[in-house]
Amino acid sequence: MVSKIVLAYSGGLDTSVAIKWLKEKYNADIITVTLDVGQKEDFKFIEDKAYKIGAIKHYMIDAKEEFARDYIFPAIRANAMYEDKYPVSTALSRPLIAKKLVEVAHKEGADAVAHGCTGKGNDQLRIEISVRALDPSLTVLAPTRDWGMSRDQEIEYARKHNIPISSVAKKYSVDQNLWGRSIEGGPLEDPWNAPDEDVWEWTIDPKKAPEEPTIMEIEFKNGVPIKIDGESMNPIELIDKVNRIAGLNGIGRIDHIEDRIVGIKSREVYECPAALTIIEAHKDLEKMVLNRRELTFKKIVDNEWTFLIYAGLWEDPLRYDLEAFINKTSERVEGIVKMKLYKGSAMVIGRESPYSLYDIRVATYDSSSTFDQSLSKGFVTLWGLQTVASRKFLK
Amino acid sequence: MVSKIVLAYSGGLDTSVAIKWLKEKYNADIITVTLDVGQKEDFKFIEDKAYKIGAIKHYMIDAKEEFARDYIFPAIRANAMYEDKYPVSTALSRPLIAKKLVEVAHKEGADAVAHGCTGKGNDQLRIEISVRALDPSLTVLAPTRDWGMSRDQEIEYARKHNIPISSVAKKYSVDQNLWGRSIEGGPLEDPWNAPDEDVWEWTIDPKKAPEEPTIMEIEFKNGVPIKIDGESMNPIELIDKVNRIAGLNGIGRIDHIEDRIVGIKSREVYECPAALTIIEAHKDLEKMVLNRRELTFKKIVDNEWTFLIYAGLWEDPLRYDLEAFINKTSERVEGIVKMKLYKGSAMVIGRESPYSLYDIRVATYDSSSTFDQSLSKGFVTLWGLQTVASRKFLK
Amino acid sequence: MVSKIVLAYSGGLDTSVAIKWLKEKYNADIITVTLDVGQKEDFKFIEDKAYKIGAIKHYMIDAKEEFARDYIFPAIRANAMYEDKYPVSTALSRPLIAKKLVEVAHKEGADAVAHGCTGKGNDQLRIEISVRALDPSLTVLAPTRDWGMSRDQEIEYARKHNIPISSVAKKYSVDQNLWGRSIEGGPLEDPWNAPDEDVWEWTIDPKKAPEEPTIMEIEFKNGVPIKIDGESMNPIELIDKVNRIAGLNGIGRIDHIEDRIVGIKSREVYECPAALTIIEAHKDLEKMVLNRRELTFKKIVDNEWTFLIYAGLWEDPLRYDLEAFINKTSERVEGIVKMKLYKGSAMVIGRESPYSLYDIRVATYDSSSTFDQSLSKGFVTLWGLQTVASRKFLK
Amino acid sequence: MVSKIVLAYSGGLDTSVAIKWLKEKYNADIITVTLDVGQKEDFKFIEDKAYKIGAIKHYMIDAKEEFARDYIFPAIRANAMYEDKYPVSTALSRPLIAKKLVEVAHKEGADAVAHGCTGKGNDQLRIEISVRALDPSLTVLAPTRDWGMSRDQEIEYARKHNIPISSVAKKYSVDQNLWGRSIEGGPLEDPWNAPDEDVWEWTIDPKKAPEEPTIMEIEFKNGVPIKIDGESMNPIELIDKVNRIAGLNGIGRIDHIEDRIVGIKSREVYECPAALTIIEAHKDLEKMVLNRRELTFKKIVDNEWTFLIYAGLWEDPLRYDLEAFINKTSERVEGIVKMKLYKGSAMVIGRESPYSLYDIRVATYDSSSTFDQSLSKGFVTLWGLQTVASRKFLK
Repeated sequence: MVSKIVLAYSGGLDTSVAIKWLKEKYNADIITVTLDVGQKEDFKFIEDKAYKIGAIKHYMIDAKEEFARDYIFPAIRANAMYEDKYPVSTALSRPLIAKKLVEVAHKEGADAVAHGCTGKGNDQLRIEISVRALDPSLTVLAPTRDWGMSRDQEIEYARKHNIPISSVAKKYSVDQNLWGRSIEGGPLEDPWNAPDEDVWEWTIDPKKAPEEPTIMEIEFKNGVPIKIDGESMNPIELIDKVNRIAGLNGIGRIDHIEDRIVGIKSREVYECPAALTIIEAHKDLEKMVLNRRELTFKKIVDNEWTFLIYAGLWEDPLRYDLEAFINKTSERVEGIVKMKLYKGSAMVIGRESPYSLYDIRVATYDSSSTFDQSLSKGFVTLWGLQTVASRKFLK
Repeated sequence: MVSKIVLAYSGGLDTSVAIKWLKEKYNADIITVTLDVGQKEDFKFIEDKAYKIGAIKHYMIDAKEEFARDYIFPAIRANAMYEDKYPVSTALSRPLIAKKLVEVAHKEGADAVAHGCTGKGNDQLRIEISVRALDPSLTVLAPTRDWGMSRDQEIEYARKHNIPISSVAKKYSVDQNLWGRSIEGGPLEDPWNAPDEDVWEWTIDPKKAPEEPTIMEIEFKNGVPIKIDGESMNPIELIDKVNRIAGLNGIGRIDHIEDRIVGIKSREVYECPAALTIIEAHKDLEKMVLNRRELTFKKIVDNEWTFLIYAGLWEDPLRYDLEAFINKTSERVEGIVKMKLYKGSAMVIGRESPYSLYDIRVATYDSSSTFDQSLSKGFVTLWGLQTVASRKFLK
Repeated sequence: MVSKIVLAYSGGLDTSVAIKWLKEKYNADIITVTLDVGQKEDFKFIEDKAYKIGAIKHYMIDAKEEFARDYIFPAIRANAMYEDKYPVSTALSRPLIAKKLVEVAHKEGADAVAHGCTGKGNDQLRIEISVRALDPSLTVLAPTRDWGMSRDQEIEYARKHNIPISSVAKKYSVDQNLWGRSIEGGPLEDPWNAPDEDVWEWTIDPKKAPEEPTIMEIEFKNGVPIKIDGESMNPIELIDKVNRIAGLNGIGRIDHIEDRIVGIKSREVYECPAALTIIEAHKDLEKMVLNRRELTFKKIVDNEWTFLIYAGLWEDPLRYDLEAFINKTSERVEGIVKMKLYKGSAMVIGRESPYSLYDIRVATYDSSSTFDQSLSKGFVTLWGLQTVASRKFLK
Repeated sequence: MVSKIVLAYSGGLDTSVAIKWLKEKYNADIITVTLDVGQKEDFKFIEDKAYKIGAIKHYMIDAKEEFARDYIFPAIRANAMYEDKYPVSTALSRPLIAKKLVEVAHKEGADAVAHGCTGKGNDQLRIEISVRALDPSLTVLAPTRDWGMSRDQEIEYARKHNIPISSVAKKYSVDQNLWGRSIEGGPLEDPWNAPDEDVWEWTIDPKKAPEEPTIMEIEFKNGVPIKIDGESMNPIELIDKVNRIAGLNGIGRIDHIEDRIVGIKSREVYECPAALTIIEAHKDLEKMVLNRRELTFKKIVDNEWTFLIYAGLWEDPLRYDLEAFINKTSERVEGIVKMKLYKGSAMVIGRESPYSLYDIRVATYDSSSTFDQSLSKGFVTLWGLQTVASRKFLK
């Protein structure tokens, strides 16, 4: 049996009920942990609520910088887009929460950690596997998944135990952090329904966006953004700024059908202005500095990296292996990308780099080109030799 | 030596000079061939010009339907986007030109075919390899690549031989067909320069696009579009219509750094309203009907297919192998995708299919869900078993 | 509750106990099914035992031909070797067992099927997922996994219920069929221990194998073997023959560390004379008839096919998609491969094919070669162009 | 024009003729360079010959240690086997030769380097591209490819210019170094012909190999072999020793159809006792210490690394990127592999590692196993969820 439990606490109904439920079921001390990963909430209110319900101690951890530097930045280097659409924003925060839960457990001498994820999503994988990878001796509890209460039963339980609950039912289930918002549930569950405007909070309706395009220059070094329009910023400021400007231009809305690792197809809606804008720029710059073979292979590496993160395998040694590759390619990903942001679309319109492989003297179609066309005949013939030889046997 | 040459004739300077040059150099009869692949030119004018310069016979071939059905449709099934940006529009037309050149050569008893491609691009690969694959006994001539004339020398040669030339120098070099326009040269050769507005012909400046979004429903069957807004159309009409409507909403502009097969990095600008719109819809629908493993693997197949087409290997047996895979998956790619087209962006906002794997009874977060959450604990633990076991040895 | 259960019955302790246990627990009729997939057992004895323990009906199904043609032959086309070592022999038989269980269930109007797999291996995946894929309405029972009896408890249960049990404890746990034997347990569980000679039944100790090599010619058509040493044979005879001859030469022993899908690393020992010999020949022939791009891509396809089969996903649509690719390439996999079998090794020493891409006139180093070396300079330079351009920026 | 040429000199006919031919054609000083990469030749004789023909200076460079450590060892880490058969032995030595040519050119102030490769093989790619990548300003000359002499003309040229030539025509063309021998030409050009025994020099006819197996323990650290049978050795000694012992047991013979990069299919025969033995051991050990995802992905990385080396792209930045991945995985590739070498086959029969993921407490089938089988039901069901859902729509 466990006696001291560190619970990832969001302040919402599930984890609020969990404080009391875990305490009673295990007769254990409950320590709550809330991370600030840029989700912009009232952390004081959350803390008060935790204590009120029965936590013996609460940790409020500002993890924004660590999140930006050690989680979002690697995702930029990997052009992380699960199924070509989702910038794994929620997925990135989960292993950081797991890491902090383990740190607090060690500090407090706890023997268990707990989280409020359901059994239908991916977050259970992300938190549980990371916790176990970092300390297999810790027990991991998933009260929401295991107690089998319906929402109505949770509310009844809350009432009975004097757990404060919000008076209005939320239309959507939302998770957010510096890298984006995830919106689920309600009318979005019909994949034929277009999302209503009330889904969106970080992006303006493109129809109401400015009539003039915004030109933005993003400067990268070592594969990550360091300046916006020539101004150096720390990672948090930079991402915040891009979120704001891109969102103001209606950029960042995502709507697709997604494959959860447990096998469910779900309709997912995200709002990620900075992620879409920065990754579009990053991919463009990579094309200028990496050669074709590197680009082709890095796409395979990026896909694998992204899958690991989505699938809860942040702590897998393979991530470290893949990042060794990615970091090596990133050494040359340096330069400036110029983007045009306008009413919902972010388009690269210019780029430059000290490591550019684009060479106008070679590429130009005018007669000054240094490219020796007499080399092409042999190339063309040998490039196609096996195609020609094998085509005749095709049935 | 060759005595009868079939020349792919565009009506432009290079191939006009080639008629005369080939005739003189080889003392051969020249037969010219021009394909209509949707590029919208004055084919009568081209024919007259060919005869005037010295062709003994001219073929004007309307290949639009064959191009749409046998070249563009497979590209839709393969979500073909070279380096994630270029819908291989020009690349698709080249093997069809090669096929027609070989057909005419056989009909006319010619012993050679010729094309006007330079030695710096990809088109030489696409035409030469396809011609040889279809008939290795034909000699392939590439006068433009081999004669070593500069543009000024070409003009001088044209004047001397009474070859009509356009009086105005073109700012850009353009190739176009039903699937898109390619625009190169001039100020675009500086990758930091944003494309001027005069680059674009098929897309309206998003600033001048309609203030109200256009909602368009594209219906697919067997992996290809068959109806727009409920109306059945043949492939040519359908693609034309999407080009028109998407272009009117400013959709279809592409600007990126591209790797040519000969090793040159080039800055390429394309305008492909239908291609971007239809492939976005097709990818979305695939997510609804193919399972995660199929989607992941098909992406590898699609990338390989696209590379083959870009790299001039249309006739490689591997294309046929890959299409066997793609066609099998396409059997279930059926349904309707609803898109919102607005000032430069095409976004999917709804989709439905008789083969949908999305099951609201499983996916819903409300308590009616048929998903048995008690299965998840075992899944999560075993999914992460090796991650946990191997993490402890990580250095 | 279920009332009629179709049980996959091997005649061993687990499934014998299961007859009684299922009958009692569910108060259900038990129908037993035993497949002959070439494992060479006393099927009459098995049948009698089933009835004696309490089955109301027993099906003995000779599935050898179907197994060879529809399961082993596709594995040959896919060069199926899980983790480069295991010819998925046991894995191949499981979906066939599942298919027959479903067929019998439909015929008998049963509402459940049952299998004797434990929770630690891969077979539970292979049978359960295939059964559900073919008929999701059937209940699948896994008594061995779920009852929680130790081996001693099973024996006690058997004694108590008059279930006949073998008087000698087996040293190894063995599964076998036409495509190979799997041997597990006992001293093999220490991966440092070399397998004892008593592990092997189908292969002679190489030291005792004939002093003279056996030369064997295997003829393939459409990617599968059709003749041995010029003699046509049906699939069963052919595989039997190769098993016998290769085994006689000490060929077919496999020993490696394997990753089970549930996350366990296990030490696995197999004995697969025909599989190793035929696949070695098949791979060699493919190199003669497929071009380099096909070979490279088919390796990816083969790996994925093999993984699906190993991982219990025989019925996944992706297998059908992959086989469309594989079958297309197999059309040209025709010809004869000459092998030398000697004291444990099977080496290809010659091959010929009507679709051979090997052309001695091109390949020969003597001066008659038709290969035009003047083409190479251009090829070499352009092949390396980006390597040269990007190398200078390497850090 | 060039005035000082550094020539890679083997002492054979091609490069001997090249000394004189280059000298005359370019009126240039010729400096010859011969590397000792373990090929076991009379280097004094080669040096004398170079001077006699007209070299103004000769470099004899003992590169064995650098070759073993910086070229062979990375190949072991990458399990390098081109098309699953060829340990890229010759391919590995070429970029080292290129590097030394460039070093000598810089030291001597030469403006060109030259090599004796023909236009039909891969070596021209390997040397030329590596030289240009290291110094694009150097001219690269390929006299043998460009002069267009037949072998008879070469001999005539040699006679006329007093170039000593071997009196006996060689049956095969051979290249060898520490990592293996390549044998080509003559009767081997018929792929149906089994190689005669006179092809082999490093391996004994298995029929004459010892009647008793040799047990050999290879210890690895950081992904490379460091001890044989408990005895530490430097890389050269170690590889030499394994070549000797494995060769004595008839191990190392390779015969397959290979795809050259220029498009030719060739029949290639190699003799690589150490390479086959060590890589077999290395792959086995990797299975013990890397998890399934790492193994699966590393196979892709290994294939790409091997292709680069085979295809002349040693200096491509992608190799450095891939090695970052490979080196990260190699940190845990430590332990001992026990092999049985016997009459042509090398089989792993035991392995152990401090980083082993094999855990007998989990893996064992006896009742002491710590694996919780109750977790499997959920895993099996969710693992197959999409297979089951999508199977019903399969056409």
